This record gives sequence, structure tokens and C-alpha cells, in this order.
Amino acid sequence: MSSSSRIAAQTYAQRAAKHANPAAKALLETIERKQSNLCVSVDVTDRDEFLDIIDTVGPYACLIKTHVDIIEHFDLSLIERLQELSSAHDFLIFEDRKFADIGNTVALQYSSGVHKIASWSHITNAHPVPGPSIISGLASVGKPLGRGLLLLAEMSTKGSLATGSYTEEAVNMARAHRDFVIGFIAQRRMEAVGTSTDTNNDEDFLILSPGVGLDSKGDAMGQQYRTPKEVVTESGCDVIIVGRGIYGKGGNIDVQSVQKQAERYRNEGWAAYQARIR
Amino acid sequence: MSSSSRIAAQTYAQRAAKHANPAAKALLETIERKQSNLCVSVDVTDRDEFLDIIDTVGPYACLIKTHVDIIEHFDLSLIERLQELSSAHDFLIFEDRKFADIGNTVALQYSSGVHKIASWSHITNAHPVPGPSIISGLASVGKPLGRGLLLLAEMSTKGSLATGSYTEEAVNMARAHRDFVIGFIAQRRMEAVGTSTDTNNDEDFLILSPGVGLDSKGDAMGQQYRTPKEVVTESGCDVIIVGRGIYGKGGNIDVQSVQKQAERYRNEGWAAYQARIR
Repeated sequence: MSSSSRIAAQTYAQRAAKHANPAAKALLETIERKQSNLCVSVDVTDRDEFLDIIDTVGPYACLIKTHVDIIEHFDLSLIERLQELSSAHDFLIFEDRKFADIGNTVALQYSSGVHKIASWSHITNAHPVPGPSIISGLASVGKPLGRGLLLLAEMSTKGSLATGSYTEEAVNMARAHRDFVIGFIAQRRMEAVGTSTDTNNDEDFLILSPGVGLDSKGDAMGQQYRTPKEVVTESGCDVIIVGRGIYGKGGNIDVQSVQKQAERYRNEGWAAYQARIR
Repeated sequence: MSSSSRIAAQTYAQRAAKHANPAAKALLETIERKQSNLCVSVDVTDRDEFLDIIDTVGPYACLIKTHVDIIEHFDLSLIERLQELSSAHDFLIFEDRKFADIGNTVALQYSSGVHKIASWSHITNAHPVPGPSIISGLASVGKPLGRGLLLLAEMSTKGSLATGSYTEEAVNMARAHRDFVIGFIAQRRMEAVGTSTDTNNDEDFLILSPGVGLDSKGDAMGQQYRTPKEVVTESGCDVIIVGRGIYGKGGNIDVQSVQKQAERYRNEGWAAYQARIR
């Protein structure tokens, strides 16, 4: 059995007990406690709608994924409200910033400016394209705060350049920084990528997969969708990321309908996990 | 003579006269008018210092490169002041956002949120890693406003993954979107990359090069430096991007010293260009 399938055969609780990074451990514990591997991606520009959706889907999600840089009239009172919802509904926060600059710049983008991402986002992510300095720059800010970083090893869009040796180098960059890099945005497990040996038995990377949908094959701007069963059972990923599949196109949300979709995705994601560890 | 050296042998004025994109044309005209191919990268978090540096270096620069997401207490009054300085000192604005997400998300990040980048930044940039949808997403916002996009075909950091086939695919993505993609962040000319033919004689991509320094070989976070002569004369790049080499480590700036450095880099960059077209 490869190290990669060994990780996929373990329960979230078993993995939580062993993980050294505080953000990864907290996420795995939350998944187990809530029986939810659902991350809801809340991509709306209106702050009231943003908070309404999170308040509605929060009970069903282990993680809320944000793009705070698209929200109109952002200020830190919005973050205070987000943190209240995080406590009330027991989810972690993942600012999907996709950092992609040199070390000195990303350290400032992560810590400073209007958004002060490091001060409130348990998990964030980065593209490996600048090389290892992006990790050391972000780690200089995030590690003392107990944060975790995901690398974008693959993307679910058509024509993505994050393939082949790019993906392999991303995984090897992560291996060299395992105290801060907790996993990947990817479509499959990564433990076997970029290595021919099977010695990293304790290597546990969280795999979060975007592009998950039950009702649609894609959108007009290049996004492509897979089902929770394909993503979690067959490809061994750990967290499904779902956005518009749950809250639709935005505007005034229909609370009951959004709850129903969130519950549906949570149930599908959890059933796919149970089928995997069986 | 290859198409690539043909472009490098032309004057900025000749290229301005032929360029179809309004932002590229304006930049080439500004370079010629001010005899400056210097872009100053202003990477400070304090808004007063940000404006002071720009007011000081503005007369010597064709372009000011910003990271508005690192500035504390940002609001649109800062942008109004930046636009006043842009008019007074005759430079264009380049928000170095390094967009790197799917089409739908980058369209919102470019147009919306606190920063509203598309409303004031003549030029911005993006990583090609998500595939062509990132260009169409940004073009849906920027093209109607006459904006221009640079792709990051290469990076100057150690261990960058933007090499080889990644760079080639970036150039081919740009070729397919020449109405909006005006050039590259790169270390050399790109017209010959990814093509074996010499038929694209009218292909004019602007090449903007970071990592330019006269006094230092690099920093502790993976940035590496080259001289204006190496970048402009030898590698055929069009614009040198200089940051801390001009204004130092920040804090209260010494206006005369910063002016002197800005003038020095402008003169070196222009001499390197004149040596190239001679």
C-alpha cells in the first residue's frame, strides 16, 4: 500500500491526533466533530449578503472560504462579525488570497494593508510559482500566529499550467516547509508526487478540492466541476469546496433553499469519505 | 534579423505610433516624452510615505508600480491624490496585483472591493497559471476602460517555476489576446518564444523587468538583481523596475538623496536604451 493510500485510509480524527500544525489539527478536529468535510466558498461583493450566507451555511461547514478583497465597504467590523460567526457555528476561516509574489511583498500583503489577513484567517494559500521564497515570506508572518498555508499544486480551470513538473516542484517545496505548508489545493492526493520512494509514511498533506458540483459541469469562464464521490472517494481528497452550487447566483438568498443545498453537499461529502475509509 | 531584435531596434516613439492598445501606446509615448524607461516600485505601508516617495520620484519615472493592498488606512482619497500626482508628474500607474485566480474571481477582484483597481490603474498584471480564463475574466473589466495587462512569463526569484514550457505557454496565451495583453514581466524579449517562425513581424510586446539594481546583488528573501545595461541593452527589455534601490529601506525619506537615485536610474536606463537602438 502506498503512503498516499495509507493517509486516505485513516480517519480525520486519527490524522488530527498526529498533525503538528495548529491550523491543520484544528481543521481535522472540526471536520470530525461536525462530520463535515464541506468548505463553502462565499464569493459575493455585498457585505450583508456575505454575512447572511455564512450565517446560513455555517452549521454545515468545517471551513468558510473568503475573497475579502471583492467585498464592498470592507472594514475590520466585518471581520469581527465573521469571527463571531466562526465561534457560533464552529468553522475555520480560509482567505483564498492566492499569494503569488516575492517573499518580502507577500509578507506585507499577508500582515498589512486594509485586510490584515494573517490576523484572522486560520488558513490561506499561495502559488508556488515564485519559488520557495514565497513560503518563507508568508511563514515569517503566519507561523508565529499558528496559521497554515496551502499551495496551489493544481488548478481546476481549462488550460491550467499547474501540471507535470510544476506540480512536482510544488510538492517538493511543501515537503521542505512542512511546519507551515499543511497541504494543497489539488484534485488528488499528493504524497506520491515527486518521489519514487515510499519512506514518508508520516507525511500528511490536506487536500482541498475546488470545482465540486452536483448539478453542473462547468461555467462560462473556464471552471470545471466534479462530484464529491469523484473527489473524495475516488481521488482521496479531504475537503470539498463548493460555492455557487449552494447559494446560487446571489442576490437575496432563500435561507431554506441554501440550508438544504449545504446539508446536501455536507451529506454527500461525508458519505464519500465514509466509503473511502470503509 | 529575428522579429524579436527588430522590435528592440525600434524607438519607443516608432512603437507608440503603431500600438493598438491605449495603455501600451500611452506608456510608450510617456517613455519617449520623458526620456525615461524607469518604473519605480513603491512598496511601503505608510500612506504619507507612499505619496512622498511618488511625489519625489514622479518627475523621473514613466510608470509608478504600486501594491495598494499593503497600505494602511487605504481609501479612495489616496487614489485621488495618486491620480493628481500622475497628472502633475506625467506618469502612468501600474498596480502590481499579480492576479492568479479563475476568470469569475479575478473579474471581481479587479473591479470591486475596497481597492477598485480597474478604475484607476492603467496597467496591471496576472499569472498565466490558471489558463486563458484569467485573461478573459480581466479583459471583461479592463478592455472597456482602455486598460492593459502584463503576464508574468518569468520571475526573478530563486527557484521560480515560470520557466521552459510555462514561459512558452504564457507567451502563446498572450498572442491569443493581443488586444488586452500588452506584454510581460520578464527578463528578456519574448517575441521568439514558443514559435519557430518569423512571421509575427508586427508583434510588439512590452517587456518590464523587475530585479534591477546598481548597488546590490540581491536580498535575503530570494530577490536577485541585474543592471540596466544587462536588462535593456543586452536582453532587450523595455522598462526597468526599481524599488528599494531608489528610496532605501523606508522611514522618513531624504528627498535629495531619493531624487539623485531616481535620476541616476533614469539616466542609466535611458543610456542602455540608446546603446540598444544605436
